Amino acid sequence: MFITFEGIDGSGKTTQSELLANYFKQIHGENNVVLTREPGGTDFAEKIRGSLLKDNIDPISELLLFTSMRYEHMKELILPALKEGKTVICDRFIDSTIAYQGYGLGVDLSLIRDLHKLVEIKYPDITFILDIDVQVGLSRAKDKNKYEEMSIDFYHKIRKGFQEIAIKESNRCNVITGIADKDNNKVYSEIIDVIRKKKKGMQPL
Amino acid sequence: MFITFEGIDGSGKTTQSELLANYFKQIHGENNVVLTREPGGTDFAEKIRGSLLKDNIDPISELLLFTSMRYEHMKELILPALKEGKTVICDRFIDSTIAYQGYGLGVDLSLIRDLHKLVEIKYPDITFILDIDVQVGLSRAKDKNKYEEMSIDFYHKIRKGFQEIAIKESNRCNVITGIADKDNNKVYSEIIDVIRKKKKGMQPL
Repeated sequence: MFITFEGIDGSGKTTQSELLANYFKQIHGENNVVLTREPGGTDFAEKIRGSLLKDNIDPISELLLFTSMRYEHMKELILPALKEGKTVICDRFIDSTIAYQGYGLGVDLSLIRDLHKLVEIKYPDITFILDIDVQVGLSRAKDKNKYEEMSIDFYHKIRKGFQEIAIKESNRCNVITGIADKDNNKVYSEIIDVIRKKKKGMQPL
Repeated sequence: MFITFEGIDGSGKTTQSELLANYFKQIHGENNVVLTREPGGTDFAEKIRGSLLKDNIDPISELLLFTSMRYEHMKELILPALKEGKTVICDRFIDSTIAYQGYGLGVDLSLIRDLHKLVEIKYPDITFILDIDVQVGLSRAKDKNKYEEMSIDFYHKIRKGFQEIAIKESNRCNVITGIADKDNNKVYSEIIDVIRKKKKGMQPL
């Protein structure tokens, strides 16, 4: 199963990815769970990650660059792990590109989808969208990157983008709302509930 | 006018790009000619160039990465210069991707063309393909990169690729043959002849 976490900076994706990875490790064993992230996940992408999160380039150049790193990530790490029956949990994936480069920076959404289709990027089986108030999210965000220098309006567009993706792809996407008012355990238990419903027969929490 | 030079390593592209740039500078003035190269041409691409020419990644990841840098190059440097009426001369461009990633590494040629079409990469007005014997070319090549560790067969495929591109796109592409047996001035004067024929009314050499 390929599970992704999405949301604006400070929404708790990294924490929840780790909690869910530990949950699956307890069930299936340490070696049967892969926890990864984007941009990154391979030596090559991790090397470029820093530059990508700092340098200002054209949004379409950025889209192509993210897609390059995503392809490498998929080919080298995600697909081989899934083929071995492992659970892959990824902190950000395709929806971040649609939200940030598409809704945020104005790249045509169909261009983003066409590009991903052209190189056959695999979509996740389950995606969690952690929805949080923009101001609260930004105040909680730990790693500062170039996007956080953008206006609040930019972040409102991204949040709205994630919400629209969730509506359009409701089979795959699950929104966890009110993150700011819930502690990590509450969010975690909502995530586990969704997974249990999706995959019946899984061990109880 | 947008002119590109293509060919295997050691075919003399860099030398001929410089000679042609000087020719146009003498006619149109120093500031009206842009000499550039790929991978590179922008701060961002020059920063990634080293890693790209060393690290082994999947050919499709590489295709996407080259296209990202090409888009940035086109948007930031090439199109603005052409809009100002300048002559742009580029050492390698789209045909290198078709030859190296396509013919050399086996990426589907239509995928490469579709990708360039999707993001509207501008094709050159004139392309010079410098055709040289593979062994001679490699022995002349100065900068060693990861491709030069590939087999001789790989380079034969690339040379054949360039030759096929020239046939398919004969309006744009001009092959200069027998590079190994000609000195730089001879090659240069053949290039100038082609340009004169293409653009009548240009000042004599």
